[in-house]
Amino acid sequence: HRAVMGVSNLEKYNEDWINNLKGSSAIVLKPKSTEEVSHILSFCNDNNLAVCPQGGNTGLVGGQLPVFDEIVISTELMNEIISLDDNSGVVVCQAGCVLESIDNILAEKGLMVPLDLGAKGSCHIGGNVSTNAGGLRLLRYGNLHGNVLGLEVVKANGEILDCLSTLKKDNTGYHLKHLFIGSEGTLGFVTKVAMQCPPRSKHTNVAFLGTQNFGKVLKTFKKAKQDLGEILSAVEVIDSSTMEFIDEKLNIKSPIGEYPFYLLIETSGSNESHDTEKLNTFLETALNKHFILNGIVASEPAKINTIWSIR
Amino acid sequence: HRAVMGVSNLEKYNEDWINNLKGSSAIVLKPKSTEEVSHILSFCNDNNLAVCPQGGNTGLVGGQLPVFDEIVISTELMNEIISLDDNSGVVVCQAGCVLESIDNILAEKGLMVPLDLGAKGSCHIGGNVSTNAGGLRLLRYGNLHGNVLGLEVVKANGEILDCLSTLKKDNTGYHLKHLFIGSEGTLGFVTKVAMQCPPRSKHTNVAFLGTQNFGKVLKTFKKAKQDLGEILSAVEVIDSSTMEFIDEKLNIKSPIGEYPFYLLIETSGSNESHDTEKLNTFLETALNKHFILNGIVASEPAKINTIWSIR
Repeated sequence: HRAVMGVSNLEKYNEDWINNLKGSSAIVLKPKSTEEVSHILSFCNDNNLAVCPQGGNTGLVGGQLPVFDEIVISTELMNEIISLDDNSGVVVCQAGCVLESIDNILAEKGLMVPLDLGAKGSCHIGGNVSTNAGGLRLLRYGNLHGNVLGLEVVKANGEILDCLSTLKKDNTGYHLKHLFIGSEGTLGFVTKVAMQCPPRSKHTNVAFLGTQNFGKVLKTFKKAKQDLGEILSAVEVIDSSTMEFIDEKLNIKSPIGEYPFYLLIETSGSNESHDTEKLNTFLETALNKHFILNGIVASEPAKINTIWSIR
Repeated sequence: HRAVMGVSNLEKYNEDWINNLKGSSAIVLKPKSTEEVSHILSFCNDNNLAVCPQGGNTGLVGGQLPVFDEIVISTELMNEIISLDDNSGVVVCQAGCVLESIDNILAEKGLMVPLDLGAKGSCHIGGNVSTNAGGLRLLRYGNLHGNVLGLEVVKANGEILDCLSTLKKDNTGYHLKHLFIGSEGTLGFVTKVAMQCPPRSKHTNVAFLGTQNFGKVLKTFKKAKQDLGEILSAVEVIDSSTMEFIDEKLNIKSPIGEYPFYLLIETSGSNESHDTEKLNTFLETALNKHFILNGIVASEPAKINTIWSIR
């Protein structure tokens, strides 16, 4: 079971979930440790065998799929949390940990992963790092270059590179780890990740707004940054033709009627009444100044999910 | 005036401000543009002349000083703000812009630089990038790897490298710019910087607390992250022997009497009453749980400065 062969067994590693792309790898290897990754890469390098690293296979652009018959090296079994320091908020884990699993463990300590994707239930943190995944809350927490404190990487020749610092302010030597963030596995195979995790927000609000034109969208965005400041956690823009497409394909309608542009604005913070007050003040001003024409707010999880489902 | 020579004129470029270290460069060049930097470096490279890039000369470890007789290339005249987009909060400027000058220009748009140092009145942003300067609010805004969106760099041979993206979510190619952040000018001379700037906080509070031991310091820190969440902007720890030293050398006394450990906690946010309420609730809990023994809070700028002066 650590080496998968046979066409039918390999299907799920050779195709992405929308069946858009297809490779024809004949074997998938599932190392459990950095040393195993190192042995595999060293062997493949010596024997001129092409490899393709794969995490949760959730990518939509095919970076995780073999182009021809490369050996797939899956991080599926590298799913151990190595340490979690709840004073500093630093988690260290193997590359194959599923994003949502890490988040669940962090939740027990009042922390969260600074990254939230549609694919969080199956994507691996190693893949997130290798693709510099952004996700829904990029606006609030920035990209992984700011949140990854350290990496352990295996180079193509099998050499293990230890850049696994857990210190927030580490300026020793060149910051090599950044080369591997977003390099899609082309420079090395990420085996371990140390990540800075922010306090988990206690309360979330979502507003769905209708605006007249793109100029008003920008004005609303700017005002939201000013008035909501530190609790603003996501802003998404949807135009009317996208909304029509969503209605047609997914049968989800705009909950506020039809407008040329829509804005989804999320706040999350540590105090429910403070957050709600800030959001209400912002919405009143935006309505009075005609930045927005209409809007609804949701604070219950079910209603929040309904609004996010549009996106 | 663009080339400085003569021992007395060169003093300020050859020494740091605490007179701890001294070089003996015989010439300082002050380019105004990237092209001039490129010509200088190309010439020096062809003629085997050693160079030493220098920004505001505020570093305390001597990285900006010539070791022997290197040619100092100063960013002093490269102080132009190239663009400022107040929708996205992205500023692009030349490497010689003084940190505080950038911050003053951002303040007019309700923005701030995500970096605050004691030397802000004279340090240059190019030097901040080259040293990956952290500063007082690293806790809140993270280091420059998270905030620098793009760089323009001149390599030793004079080649200009354009990594000057202003896009927050740019995943095209390798993220080369990170190599230059914190590499102290050894890989290239930073000529332009694009930086993501957060909304300027409207209100600041500072608390100065006394605790019994380091265990309680950690408990207070954790509680502060939980209760103050998104408005926590700085935490500093001072032990009793440091406090005695500060009293002896600078004649600044602890404003709350003597304790084994002191904590300086700063909050900054968009709503004064919300921030104050969160801070008061946190302090009450910390006192009731005996995490802290005593504490004062300041919200007026003068009092805030007095407390920060201890640090």
